[in-house]
Amino acid sequence: MIHEDTAKELSLHVGNRIKISKGRKNVISIIDTIDGVVNRKQIATSDDIVKQLRLKNNDVVDVTLVKRPTSIELIKKKLSGERLSREEIKEIVTDIANNALTEVEIAFFVSAVFAKGMTLTETKDLTRAMVKTGKVLKLRGKIADKHSIGGVAGNRTTPITVSICAAAGLIMPKTSSRAITSAAGTADVIETIANVEFSISQIKKIVKKTNACFVWGGALGLAPVDDTIIKIERVVNIDSTAQLLASILSKKISVDSKYILIDIPNGKSAKVSRVKAKKLGHAFESLARKFDLKVKVVLTNGSEPIGNGIGPVLEIKDVIKVLTGEADAPKDLEDKSVFLAGQLLELTNKAKKGKGEELAREILDSGKAYQKFVEIVKAQNEPGKKFRRFVQPKFSRVINARNNKRVKHIDNQLINRLARYAGCPEDKLAGLYLHKKKDQFIVKREPLLTIYAQSKEKLKYALKFYKKNRKQIIEFY
Amino acid sequence: MIHEDTAKELSLHVGNRIKISKGRKNVISIIDTIDGVVNRKQIATSDDIVKQLRLKNNDVVDVTLVKRPTSIELIKKKLSGERLSREEIKEIVTDIANNALTEVEIAFFVSAVFAKGMTLTETKDLTRAMVKTGKVLKLRGKIADKHSIGGVAGNRTTPITVSICAAAGLIMPKTSSRAITSAAGTADVIETIANVEFSISQIKKIVKKTNACFVWGGALGLAPVDDTIIKIERVVNIDSTAQLLASILSKKISVDSKYILIDIPNGKSAKVSRVKAKKLGHAFESLARKFDLKVKVVLTNGSEPIGNGIGPVLEIKDVIKVLTGEADAPKDLEDKSVFLAGQLLELTNKAKKGKGEELAREILDSGKAYQKFVEIVKAQNEPGKKFRRFVQPKFSRVINARNNKRVKHIDNQLINRLARYAGCPEDKLAGLYLHKKKDQFIVKREPLLTIYAQSKEKLKYALKFYKKNRKQIIEFY
Repeated sequence: MIHEDTAKELSLHVGNRIKISKGRKNVISIIDTIDGVVNRKQIATSDDIVKQLRLKNNDVVDVTLVKRPTSIELIKKKLSGERLSREEIKEIVTDIANNALTEVEIAFFVSAVFAKGMTLTETKDLTRAMVKTGKVLKLRGKIADKHSIGGVAGNRTTPITVSICAAAGLIMPKTSSRAITSAAGTADVIETIANVEFSISQIKKIVKKTNACFVWGGALGLAPVDDTIIKIERVVNIDSTAQLLASILSKKISVDSKYILIDIPNGKSAKVSRVKAKKLGHAFESLARKFDLKVKVVLTNGSEPIGNGIGPVLEIKDVIKVLTGEADAPKDLEDKSVFLAGQLLELTNKAKKGKGEELAREILDSGKAYQKFVEIVKAQNEPGKKFRRFVQPKFSRVINARNNKRVKHIDNQLINRLARYAGCPEDKLAGLYLHKKKDQFIVKREPLLTIYAQSKEKLKYALKFYKKNRKQIIEFY
Repeated sequence: MIHEDTAKELSLHVGNRIKISKGRKNVISIIDTIDGVVNRKQIATSDDIVKQLRLKNNDVVDVTLVKRPTSIELIKKKLSGERLSREEIKEIVTDIANNALTEVEIAFFVSAVFAKGMTLTETKDLTRAMVKTGKVLKLRGKIADKHSIGGVAGNRTTPITVSICAAAGLIMPKTSSRAITSAAGTADVIETIANVEFSISQIKKIVKKTNACFVWGGALGLAPVDDTIIKIERVVNIDSTAQLLASILSKKISVDSKYILIDIPNGKSAKVSRVKAKKLGHAFESLARKFDLKVKVVLTNGSEPIGNGIGPVLEIKDVIKVLTGEADAPKDLEDKSVFLAGQLLELTNKAKKGKGEELAREILDSGKAYQKFVEIVKAQNEPGKKFRRFVQPKFSRVINARNNKRVKHIDNQLINRLARYAGCPEDKLAGLYLHKKKDQFIVKREPLLTIYAQSKEKLKYALKFYKKNRKQIIEFY
């Protein structure tokens, strides 16, 4: 934003594309004019730009007019339904990486890919361009990764599966996301007991020491164009198949993974139906072949939440229970984590065909997985720091059964929304505890569900939402 | 933009949708954070918002968080290829009108309409919703209008056609646009001799007095959603048929026109091919039927520029020459204007079938059209103000023929670009004069083209562009 008079003087108009430079760093932005806040020699920019250019007050910057990028013509081409060549896709992705396109222009690209689709070759070129415009992590050993497309509440298999596989000798530089629409992402959950924000060289050290890590992938600069595109997709909540494939594989390729397990939970209240899951699985396999990756796709039952706790702290507690073999550890979470670990062990030839799950369970039962988990968490914390002993959430409300009955279905999406009303993921202690799961009997006045919150208002909001949607959140026979 | 600490205090996050209110006016915007420029009690906004809310420094405004509009789901629905109902289209258009959607969200809507198309019923609903969310002009009499889809350089028929028809008794509240990619729009041209920015009530007075007006339609608030959508379309230079139809008809319906003449210039270097023009014409007729409008579509030859002058002042000079019957008046401009006026006179039953052109030429030749033109221009100026006597442009360069030859083709798009390099439309005196047109002979050293500019640099830019594209700008046999 510049002063109106300065704009006139320099023949700059609102909407003009400019480059703001300081030293060798530069950012492309769009001119707006403002009065009163800045004088004629000043510009105002968003915090985003301040951070990107590392600006301080009274810094001198260069502002120059830049030409409309030719990639806009390519976006129009895609929007008209034409195929893009490898060079053309590279040009668009490079312009996004260099901040040469505005959000509105990127929105046109995102809609074009969604509305017109991409061929396998285009998707490959998109993936490759995303990797090329970002940083990469180079490691030695059998580098493996797992990814779930999400949508299942409580489904915190990653810390368990990764601990088992790392204990078996696999190298797993696992990067995770924070929650977008769910109650918690793996990064939010791990953050309750360890740091998750590191630089690439710090991650390298952690993985060298422990075989694995559980870090937040957001600010690492691995395939950063993917993050930009996802941010725009989220505006209208769309998810094009091509972008989904490119997004996941670009992140895995950037950390040099050669063995990748993709979990596609499907079914009632999951993200995708069984049919869609199969199609997506095939697409993953085809694309992976283009990159010489060993990919195994598993279609899992995503109809019901997994584990009892929903929310950052509540989920890490479930994870620790499984790893330490406590009596009340959630069986469904344990079984799924072991199953996924078994698949990865077979894919990487650490176990023979059909023997993976057995090996995984052995590692879990022996305590080696927990030992590995503690090792990784310690590596991600300042030396000497102990696991935090969790305080109790400030407010809670137990919902009891009104009569004797059997649980038929618990809805993932509504459970996530309920947990978010209670304060997830910002309030780490907030969330839900599901005392009963599908097909379990419950007796009148027995606890069905506990809601935890850190403020009275949030507990009230959550209860209001629960009362309104009670019958859809938990169905009974 | 608010201070980072204020954002934290109010639990507002970058990207949150907020409503800024002052009195009864409000604007929806998106939160960004900024440091140093504003203190914790201040907000900074773009000039656009300042104007919309009529803000002054130290004004107190209310900032409240607003919910994500449900129209975003409808945009997603369209993007997935589904049809939208009348109510759904109304909801989207109303949200755009109320500033409840961001530019990125509108971009998704615009791409959805472009990539997936709209049925005739959807287009009708879009048109109606655009009219309903804007102001309207109510007038008495036979209200008629003309519209050209543009693309032909110099094609300034509007002032002539409207003057003829208004002299014949038609009511023509003509609103025009400014140039976007061309050398001049009708509003830019009329502005060289009259004011073009009025309120709706002022326009009413002008039309009551003179039967017609030539005003800028931009800030009148007639179907304003159309302007918003066009602004976003321009980002990637797309033009969906549904939006084009809705755009034109909504403006005409807003000024209560019952008789509408649509000119679709087509052919080499025009906006559309003959085939596309026919299709578009049919679409116009079908849509008009839904609104009970009398629409006549004419497909005209748009291969070559029309008139000799290209640029605001150069074009008004051509217009005046035609109206006053000067010997060197451009014949092509005169003929097309008379043809269009004839069509309108027949459509409105002012002339019998086949006799419209005759009547139009009679009105032009009698001087009544010029008299009407002067009357309208006077009504659009302060009392007593005379037509400005045009000063000479500061710089000019005559391009002479290198040898004897015959003009084969002059390219509309390149001519427009050349004129823009010379300073059009901002520099009113800048532009081109075409001494020779298609099929005319030119003798060695005779002037072919004169370039006018208001600065040496711009003349240089224009000459550089001319030299580089000489063979494509004007082709010879």
